[in-house]
Parts: sequence; structure tokens; C-alpha cells
Amino acid sequence: MRYHKIPEETIRRLPVYLRQLMLLCQKDCTNVSSHNFSDLVHIPDSQIRKDFSYFGDFGVRGKGYDVKKLIKEIKRILKLESTRQVALVGAGRLGSAVLSYPGFGSYNFKITCAIDNDKRKIGKKIGNLTIKNASQINSLKKKNIKLAIVATPADAAQDVTNKLVKAGVNGILNFAPCTLTTPKKVKVINIDIAMDLATLSYYLRSA
Amino acid sequence: MRYHKIPEETIRRLPVYLRQLMLLCQKDCTNVSSHNFSDLVHIPDSQIRKDFSYFGDFGVRGKGYDVKKLIKEIKRILKLESTRQVALVGAGRLGSAVLSYPGFGSYNFKITCAIDNDKRKIGKKIGNLTIKNASQINSLKKKNIKLAIVATPADAAQDVTNKLVKAGVNGILNFAPCTLTTPKKVKVINIDIAMDLATLSYYLRSA
Repeated sequence: MRYHKIPEETIRRLPVYLRQLMLLCQKDCTNVSSHNFSDLVHIPDSQIRKDFSYFGDFGVRGKGYDVKKLIKEIKRILKLESTRQVALVGAGRLGSAVLSYPGFGSYNFKITCAIDNDKRKIGKKIGNLTIKNASQINSLKKKNIKLAIVATPADAAQDVTNKLVKAGVNGILNFAPCTLTTPKKVKVINIDIAMDLATLSYYLRSA
Repeated sequence: MRYHKIPEETIRRLPVYLRQLMLLCQKDCTNVSSHNFSDLVHIPDSQIRKDFSYFGDFGVRGKGYDVKKLIKEIKRILKLESTRQVALVGAGRLGSAVLSYPGFGSYNFKITCAIDNDKRKIGKKIGNLTIKNASQINSLKKKNIKLAIVATPADAAQDVTNKLVKAGVNGILNFAPCTLTTPKKVKVINIDIAMDLATLSYYLRSA
């Protein structure tokens, strides 16, 4: 499969499809027409078919999508078939909120390592996890942890990122309000709530 | 100015530029070359110039960008010149973390209303804000609050959204793990941490 030819936009829509399919599955829905599915995810039918076409033919003409089968296929494509460990660096308010986020399990994510450099936090427990000191970043390679969430202040984020990359992490979800520099092989997704609000502000009509 | 012709991708990059310019301003940098600026935001020079060209000519040939002037221009475009009130619905762990997020002020955002339907939370204070009950959503129109953050569980999010729209909100930042249905005039940006991790997972090379 030539992964590099698949547009990033397609990859970003796969989790949207997966989330909706898991919701349908929870409601004991075994089959969904492509038309209804399109309505549920607010993405045109033709786009969905195009996205899936990169990976095979998942629909059955006249029968729609088999919910469980499609969940399995998308999980396979996204490499979510078995539990994937995630490290969290920065256990402040936002980091702690992320730690207690209930939505990871259904995607097979598990935060198995929480790190902070604040002595008042190190050793404390959040849920089942004990917050470790920053030197623990080096242990991620041994634990085969490839994904990390950076929830540190902006001025610490690049240094933490360099250490994460050195420890073999190659996917980073960045909450710190700054642009991280990483080698090409490392994928970064940025979440900046204030920037998203700023985007929304643009679209507001005048009061 | 024909706003409707400006690509959403351009609008989404403006806050990235603004954030970087504010960082430069903090460091007392008054001028930045287009080349250095491109390096800092990790966006090609040509793209930046194209984005700005929708709104006017912000650079001076051979002198780069005037940091303060550009901050002012982008804030004007994003309608961030004066304080913009934001409502938060859902004051659980994530909502509380959002409330204490330090990054809003520099964009002139202020969360002035926090709402929850949990009796144990109503009346409690987070920072200077007292959590109000859900009936307060109706008061947003009077307060001229146009932006809201939805941080409720998925099964409450659509109902809350309907009420927000009825109260005149037309920009929503949605943390609930579901797709919201809104009238066209209402802009929604979704943040789903688990879905972002799922996207990162795709790009991981095999262990």
C-alpha cells in the first residue's frame, strides 16, 4: 500500500468515521447506508467513498456499510488494533484533564507514563498513574512508547520535544502555545484553544 | 472586502502568525524578515505572502514585517481588537482546565460565563467565575456573548448547542466527542484529543 500518496485530509477524516461508527455500534446498529452515514458525519457521500477507496472497497452496493467490519478496517489502517501506549509530559491543569479524559479507551490508547519537572507534582497520583520526573523521558524507548502529549508551558515545550524525539517518540500532540521544530519523521498535531477561538472570531458577524 | 472568497485555510493560519508575532513582540523584536518569519512558523514564505495578500500589503520590500503593525492588522482582521466574551458550558475536568488556561488574554478573550447542569458544581467558584445553572444559557443574548466552548459529555452536547444557537451564539468550540448539527451561519471547530492521537498513530512507523 502506498501510504505516502494518501492525502492527510483523508487520514484526518478516518477517526471521524471511526468515532461515528463506534457510536452506531454502541446503539446496536449493524448496518448503515452510505447516505445516512454521510448525514451523520456531515461529510459528502462522494468524499467518504473517495477516502475509503484508498484502502479498498468497504461498502456493499445497495446494502451500505457493515458497521463492525468497517470499525475493524479503520482501526487496522490507523494501527489501533492493539493497545497503544502514550506518554504525557506536563501534568498541570490541562495535563491532568487530559489524563482523566474518558475517550481514549475506545481507540485503544492508554496513557501509561506521566511526567513533570515540578517537585510538588512528582510522586503524586492521578488515577492509577504516578507522576514521574523529567529524567523518565529517557525510559520511553525501552517501553516502546511512540506517542506523546506535550502539555507544558511554551518555554519548556521545545526542550521536552527534543528529548522525546531522542527517546524514539515520533508522534506528538502539542498543547503548548508554540510551534515545535522536529525532524521530518516526527509528526506533530497542534491544539491551541485560543487560536481556535480566534478563528471562530473571524467568522462572527458584527454585533 | 470580500471575506467569503478567502480560504478557510488562510483564516486558520492567521492566528498562527499572530501567536508568533506576539512572541516576537514579547522579546522586544520590532521587525522580522519574511524569511525568518517563515522559519519561525514553519510555513513557506510564498504561502504567508499569499495569505496576507487577501487583506492588503503588510510587508515592506527589503525590510520585512513591522511586528507591532502586523499584530494590529491581524487582530483587526480577526475582530480581536476589543475584549470578546466567551461562555463555557460544561465545567467538568476539561472545562475547568479550559477556564484556567492562561493563553486567552493576549487574544482579548475572556470567559465571562461558566455553565453546568450538575447541582454539585453550580454555585462553586473557579477563579473569579461562579458556575451557573443551564438556564443561564438564555441570558447570553442579553450579554451579547457570541462565542461558546462546549465541554459537556457527548450525549448532552447537541441539546446544549441548540440552546446556544437559540441564544445567539454563532461560534462554537466543541470538545464533546460528537458531530454537532448547527445552522450554516454557526461555525463549529471540533477538538477531539483521541481522534488527533488516532491520526498520529497512522503515521507511526511499525515498531
